Amino acid sequence: MSAEALDDLRERLRQFAAERDWQQFHAPKNLAIALSVEAAELLEHFQWLPEEASRRLDDSALAPIREELADVLLYLVRLADELGVDLLAAAHDKLASNARRYPVESARGSSRKSTEP
Amino acid sequence: MSAEALDDLRERLRQFAAERDWQQFHAPKNLAIALSVEAAELLEHFQWLPEEASRRLDDSALAPIREELADVLLYLVRLADELGVDLLAAAHDKLASNARRYPVESARGSSRKSTEP
Amino acid sequence: MSAEALDDLRERLRQFAAERDWQQFHAPKNLAIALSVEAAELLEHFQWLPEEASRRLDDSALAPIREELADVLLYLVRLADELGVDLLAAAHDKLASNARRYPVESARGSSRKSTEP
Amino acid sequence: MSAEALDDLRERLRQFAAERDWQQFHAPKNLAIALSVEAAELLEHFQWLPEEASRRLDDSALAPIREELADVLLYLVRLADELGVDLLAAAHDKLASNARRYPVESARGSSRKSTEP
Repeated sequence: MSAEALDDLRERLRQFAAERDWQQFHAPKNLAIALSVEAAELLEHFQWLPEEASRRLDDSALAPIREELADVLLYLVRLADELGVDLLAAAHDKLASNARRYPVESARGSSRKSTEP
Repeated sequence: MSAEALDDLRERLRQFAAERDWQQFHAPKNLAIALSVEAAELLEHFQWLPEEASRRLDDSALAPIREELADVLLYLVRLADELGVDLLAAAHDKLASNARRYPVESARGSSRKSTEP
Repeated sequence: MSAEALDDLRERLRQFAAERDWQQFHAPKNLAIALSVEAAELLEHFQWLPEEASRRLDDSALAPIREELADVLLYLVRLADELGVDLLAAAHDKLASNARRYPVESARGSSRKSTEP
Repeated sequence: MSAEALDDLRERLRQFAAERDWQQFHAPKNLAIALSVEAAELLEHFQWLPEEASRRLDDSALAPIREELADVLLYLVRLADELGVDLLAAAHDKLASNARRYPVESARGSSRKSTEP
């Protein structure tokens, strides 16, 4: 992976939208809807699958899921860009906050605590 | 942004889960649910907001949205890791596919085409 | 609409699942996923549509939306049945609770209050 | 359950919105977002729960889930009303269509077929 990978993706998506004159549709409200719709399309692949089966998908099951993961990232990067949010900085801040909220000792093995990744 | 930023985030999340013995909860099916729930929490901030107002949020409106964007990224990176998917490679493949699907000339300014970011 | 309309729908869905031996897949967790996926498929029809345009859809736009509304109701009734919840009683309780939470005078015209239907 | 139960709920919700001057916020696009957000709040209760545990929830676990089921129904009825769709007629049409799409013999016990309730 090259340096500035997410920055590069952000620039490519910004240019992709500009070339097609799609900024008019890319209000943050609409992008947040699109992100949520893509996350549901990803989830759809798991809806009738037993939990354990979801841990051992074969390549043919994984291929469409990989595309949905990509769609979620593309809309997430596009939305963060329109909002002027630095995604990676936000993620690192949130991870630090989660580390304070779920100390290793008290959170160990507790599903009640695992409301954060 | 440093090189290998997403790789670093992936490693930190993997360690975060391992230290808390949370891998048992992190079946891809459950992570896909969590991702979808976070995307909806992000969307909730926009539900009654006029489209144009979503383009000019002030800092106090943006702060909780920034946290939700982070949550979506954290679960997305965690899920891709559990599935063995390289997120950035998948995103670049999808972007190339979108470029073929929506040629600049025919897609320009058409909301019917803008089903992709 | 005949009397006991939702009860009748519940019975027909229960029989539909039983005849196909689908109860094994209809754990409430899975039905809650399916409901959320259907709600997103419904939302997808609105994602790039201006708010005002969503108030005046023509018949051809409405037809697929009508099907998605039906899917949401079918999964909602199926899920409530599996959980032993009386949907209409729950809805009336919630409406009474909302009436206390949003008194007419203070809630009038305020989008900040309109987080409930 | 009394006759015209859903009709009655629809009328009460319409009046609830009118009294508070909330019709201005209740564009179908916004109601579809709200419905999707409520479905995700419902799903959140199941995200770390094993599938089998979701079949035997105790009363304290069920109480907040019952409220979320109600919220989904309230927004669904409100949205269908704004769109002029008869929810029960749409549900019966969809159920008839599903019966043709998933004949009892070929669909029996197959999770691949169970993409409909």
